[in-house]
Amino acid sequence: MNSFGRLFRVNIFGESHGESVGLNIDGCPAGMPLNVLDFLPDIERRKGGTQKGTTPRQESDLPIFKAGLFNDKTTGAPISIIFENNNTRSGDYEKLRAVPRPGHADFVAHKKFGGYEDFRGGGHFSGRLTVCLVAAGVIAKKMLKLADPKIECTATILEIGGEKDLEKGLQKAIDAKDSVGGIVECRVQNLPVGLGEPFFDSVESLISHAVFAIPAVRAIEFGTGFKAAQMFGVEHNDAIENMQGKTVTNHAGGVVGGITNGNEFVFRIAIKPTSSTPKEQTTLNWEKGEKETVSVKGRHDLCIALRVPVILEAVTAMVLTDLLLLEQHIKRIV
Amino acid sequence: MNSFGRLFRVNIFGESHGESVGLNIDGCPAGMPLNVLDFLPDIERRKGGTQKGTTPRQESDLPIFKAGLFNDKTTGAPISIIFENNNTRSGDYEKLRAVPRPGHADFVAHKKFGGYEDFRGGGHFSGRLTVCLVAAGVIAKKMLKLADPKIECTATILEIGGEKDLEKGLQKAIDAKDSVGGIVECRVQNLPVGLGEPFFDSVESLISHAVFAIPAVRAIEFGTGFKAAQMFGVEHNDAIENMQGKTVTNHAGGVVGGITNGNEFVFRIAIKPTSSTPKEQTTLNWEKGEKETVSVKGRHDLCIALRVPVILEAVTAMVLTDLLLLEQHIKRIV
Amino acid sequence: MNSFGRLFRVNIFGESHGESVGLNIDGCPAGMPLNVLDFLPDIERRKGGTQKGTTPRQESDLPIFKAGLFNDKTTGAPISIIFENNNTRSGDYEKLRAVPRPGHADFVAHKKFGGYEDFRGGGHFSGRLTVCLVAAGVIAKKMLKLADPKIECTATILEIGGEKDLEKGLQKAIDAKDSVGGIVECRVQNLPVGLGEPFFDSVESLISHAVFAIPAVRAIEFGTGFKAAQMFGVEHNDAIENMQGKTVTNHAGGVVGGITNGNEFVFRIAIKPTSSTPKEQTTLNWEKGEKETVSVKGRHDLCIALRVPVILEAVTAMVLTDLLLLEQHIKRIV
Amino acid sequence: MNSFGRLFRVNIFGESHGESVGLNIDGCPAGMPLNVLDFLPDIERRKGGTQKGTTPRQESDLPIFKAGLFNDKTTGAPISIIFENNNTRSGDYEKLRAVPRPGHADFVAHKKFGGYEDFRGGGHFSGRLTVCLVAAGVIAKKMLKLADPKIECTATILEIGGEKDLEKGLQKAIDAKDSVGGIVECRVQNLPVGLGEPFFDSVESLISHAVFAIPAVRAIEFGTGFKAAQMFGVEHNDAIENMQGKTVTNHAGGVVGGITNGNEFVFRIAIKPTSSTPKEQTTLNWEKGEKETVSVKGRHDLCIALRVPVILEAVTAMVLTDLLLLEQHIKRIV
Repeated sequence: MNSFGRLFRVNIFGESHGESVGLNIDGCPAGMPLNVLDFLPDIERRKGGTQKGTTPRQESDLPIFKAGLFNDKTTGAPISIIFENNNTRSGDYEKLRAVPRPGHADFVAHKKFGGYEDFRGGGHFSGRLTVCLVAAGVIAKKMLKLADPKIECTATILEIGGEKDLEKGLQKAIDAKDSVGGIVECRVQNLPVGLGEPFFDSVESLISHAVFAIPAVRAIEFGTGFKAAQMFGVEHNDAIENMQGKTVTNHAGGVVGGITNGNEFVFRIAIKPTSSTPKEQTTLNWEKGEKETVSVKGRHDLCIALRVPVILEAVTAMVLTDLLLLEQHIKRIV
Repeated sequence: MNSFGRLFRVNIFGESHGESVGLNIDGCPAGMPLNVLDFLPDIERRKGGTQKGTTPRQESDLPIFKAGLFNDKTTGAPISIIFENNNTRSGDYEKLRAVPRPGHADFVAHKKFGGYEDFRGGGHFSGRLTVCLVAAGVIAKKMLKLADPKIECTATILEIGGEKDLEKGLQKAIDAKDSVGGIVECRVQNLPVGLGEPFFDSVESLISHAVFAIPAVRAIEFGTGFKAAQMFGVEHNDAIENMQGKTVTNHAGGVVGGITNGNEFVFRIAIKPTSSTPKEQTTLNWEKGEKETVSVKGRHDLCIALRVPVILEAVTAMVLTDLLLLEQHIKRIV
Repeated sequence: MNSFGRLFRVNIFGESHGESVGLNIDGCPAGMPLNVLDFLPDIERRKGGTQKGTTPRQESDLPIFKAGLFNDKTTGAPISIIFENNNTRSGDYEKLRAVPRPGHADFVAHKKFGGYEDFRGGGHFSGRLTVCLVAAGVIAKKMLKLADPKIECTATILEIGGEKDLEKGLQKAIDAKDSVGGIVECRVQNLPVGLGEPFFDSVESLISHAVFAIPAVRAIEFGTGFKAAQMFGVEHNDAIENMQGKTVTNHAGGVVGGITNGNEFVFRIAIKPTSSTPKEQTTLNWEKGEKETVSVKGRHDLCIALRVPVILEAVTAMVLTDLLLLEQHIKRIV
Repeated sequence: MNSFGRLFRVNIFGESHGESVGLNIDGCPAGMPLNVLDFLPDIERRKGGTQKGTTPRQESDLPIFKAGLFNDKTTGAPISIIFENNNTRSGDYEKLRAVPRPGHADFVAHKKFGGYEDFRGGGHFSGRLTVCLVAAGVIAKKMLKLADPKIECTATILEIGGEKDLEKGLQKAIDAKDSVGGIVECRVQNLPVGLGEPFFDSVESLISHAVFAIPAVRAIEFGTGFKAAQMFGVEHNDAIENMQGKTVTNHAGGVVGGITNGNEFVFRIAIKPTSSTPKEQTTLNWEKGEKETVSVKGRHDLCIALRVPVILEAVTAMVLTDLLLLEQHIKRIV
């Protein structure tokens, strides 16, 4: 299923080199102001081409509203948004048809869909679809503010190519004529106590479900994360110090028993190095049945982690909005 | 929702010190042999009391079939299984009513459910419910074998308290009179290519969703995981070497683009140290509104990570079974 | 799936002659008083044996709470309830194994589940499971009152065997030594305007989905129903006469565009005659591959429509409760 | 939620006088040929303007594929289709803003969405969206043929305005300068035994759920339907006469215990008279708070039942396709 969420439900569709990509949203309250301008800042953050290390591919990426808005406000009916693909150069990819690019979904897509997949630029598997996640995130972030204007959701890059100095990390990739990965952290302030459910719908379950929808994510940790496995119990436990549940430390990252505890919600994800790299690599030509050397030309990012923060905020906001609706912190009509 | 899965759907219910815990399963094919003996090995593995570092609490933990079986075979109707709680000593917990145990869900449960929660021993939030996950896993593992008898799903402990020598890690906890965490790895062999969906229902999304339903899990990484963030693209990409998709290396851990690629599926999780520790800790008494020192007596594990492998296998098998049903690798009638 | 509902979600399980039948409920708010006594009146209404025309089979039918209650109040965790089958006489049925009873699910169950189904007394297909629906209805009805104490949901029998005089209808069956069906109507007062969604989750869609889960229902009509097909537009349209949406007539039965309009919600269903009848009937013996004459002995109702009102109220309350939760007319904590 | 289906899942969106209406589909197998021509016959059948009694509003109604197709075949990725609204005349409706049209959703939409709804021509509640259902049906019908080329799904009008002679029924409306309703029947041949689930996902539950998504449907009956309530058991029961489950009679309409039994699947629905009628009607002006007389001009059908057969086939095919996928009668790759 290409959909996610229980009350705030998002569907995404489209292909990298098809006519368009887009999304549908169910569960947005009626009466929320929404227009193209709301989307521009986050779409701009996601775009390649403006910083060292990201692809020169440029789409104007203006959201085209197909349904669900009237007089610049949400109507309560499903919202449908499309982004046109104006700048596709399929020729770059077609010659690679029988040669799955290492690290990409080409091989698995071919097997899963019997060769009927749109293989151009990854087709439906393309990072191009993350513009749809960002658009859903713009709406979700507005809804977070309906629950409480003090809620802030911010993702930042902690490391590139193993370096906390991000310029240095990128330079490593440039020097090596290769790509690099990175670590991104997300922090959310002022969430109420009580979001999430025990077991299957724990906050960590839902957040990680959404986060692994972002291409290239390989790991996630909440609060102290992997380091928790090396701590003693008394060290790791966060002592509650007031009636609102504020804790002295925040090793739990704001979630206990799967439920938000009113402290800052904190988690980190690992992004693998961009699969497309100018370096020569070995793969298999499935028509010839023999190995072949490829160098993926096209337009690619040295480091896709650079684009991830705004996408990470988006999926985080999607999950939290859904949980805030479930707990009735957001009304059905604004 | 206390349920998970699309075609193989599991519900769990119950409280630590209530009458029983249990589970319901929809989507099991008709005609699969199933009896109490199938459950004993995994239930035994989960039990405390048999190894250094686990709680002396003992339940007989025999599954009681309430529905869905006939002549020791599944009928295709929903399966219902109950485990009685025979060995509850609520007195241990009741005196702590107004004093949330650090690291436990006591505080968030109280806020979320308005004080109506069954607070004895964590109530519905208790690790006791993981016996239900294990039971679902027993059934799911049998279904994996229906898809392909060669599929193997095995979880092992890699580290305890930061030590690869597990005895040494436990001894650290004993010496410190405290609890410790650990790292657990799961590996699955012989999965077909093509399980999972692009984006929201990626294999990593579904596995992590299920894995964070296990209490005390703080992090998950697939394949190379967090280390991927420090690698170059050419290093991380796995070169395909034959028509079945076998790759020379397996940094991806068997999943590319959210879809299984036919290589070994590998991921690791971090378990925090047991929240209940004999050491004194500070918390808040919410009736008095002032800080208080607690030492959680009761029966507890030095290291709950020791119990996790069988639970991790269970939720992994649940997810994979669901995906194998979706791809029609498992028939509706055995 | 043996489950229904989006926020108020009910699972049912069990077999007619197995150990028990039961249900699980997700989505009940925390803090709602609930005990065995709440269930007795509706369970009593459903029971056979107390009125002419219903089966002499008697179960004590006391709900056994397995989870989700604490100090006679709901906890917010999933509720699990079991009804034991004390009074099963499988012998009546076993001899019919290879002879599908006309009008029953024996043949389709055998085909669908490959012969692995529990065939005793219909197994999972039995009307016995309607006690689970009634139990879910008891909880749902209490939740309706949380939304508005003035909401009333009442089903009554309009016709038995084609007769408005019910005694006369039953007497027809007795005289003919056969079974008869009937018409049951459900009316709900004081629902708010705005329940339901356009198209797929219209009130009629959800109600009919739930209603056809009741065995033996063959038809449903809302408001004027089939008669509407013979009316002129001006006749059928209900003129709104005040700001609350009160209409002069109520041909729509309280739903317009799939949404409740604040008027009385009214619908009717048709119940077929009990399939089990003492009369001789022809069917096929699937072992011998030849026709055979059967007369279904066992314990059966002359007219199952007599038991339906309380079940119809139950599934109606389930749907309405779910919609009231979605529209936030019921809080998460009482 | 504006979505329906478990494996074959359809979302619809759009407004009568917005820019477009459209749909998304998940669960279509990869490799199924599909192009614009496949849609034309059914879209033509749905269109107004070609027969006495339907509206002169004409849309070209060519499906515009936004995603999920490649080289005129499905790719296995979600399909997105849009229909542009070219022929909107909002002016007809805007003057009615404060005057809810009798029989329409104007009043309930206003209450449910707080006045933020797109009120032009019914907005999202418009019958215009049934073109999306028809499009989903075109795809679903092709999938039925993948399961078995012999499956046929056909709906026909049985009655208009209470008359079996349809011309006569329409003439009644024309003479009365009013609108009329009708009865439509759907029949499906050659379904396999075993579709549907006991209780909540019975075939009748799913079909009626989908059918009541069609605007103006007021009733549904399966097989003998309401007449069953007047029959004796021996009369109503269908005797099985061969090993394939063929029955001598078909009062059950091809479904027993909620499961298809291999006989012709038959049901009928009642369509109310078109709410918009040229006749003068009384309603309330909610701004003035007083009664007002309206005569709905615009472009309307004398009898919308005339358009319903193709829509009824569509939703029926949607449900059956989903069930055929669940029972693995349709493969994931063509």
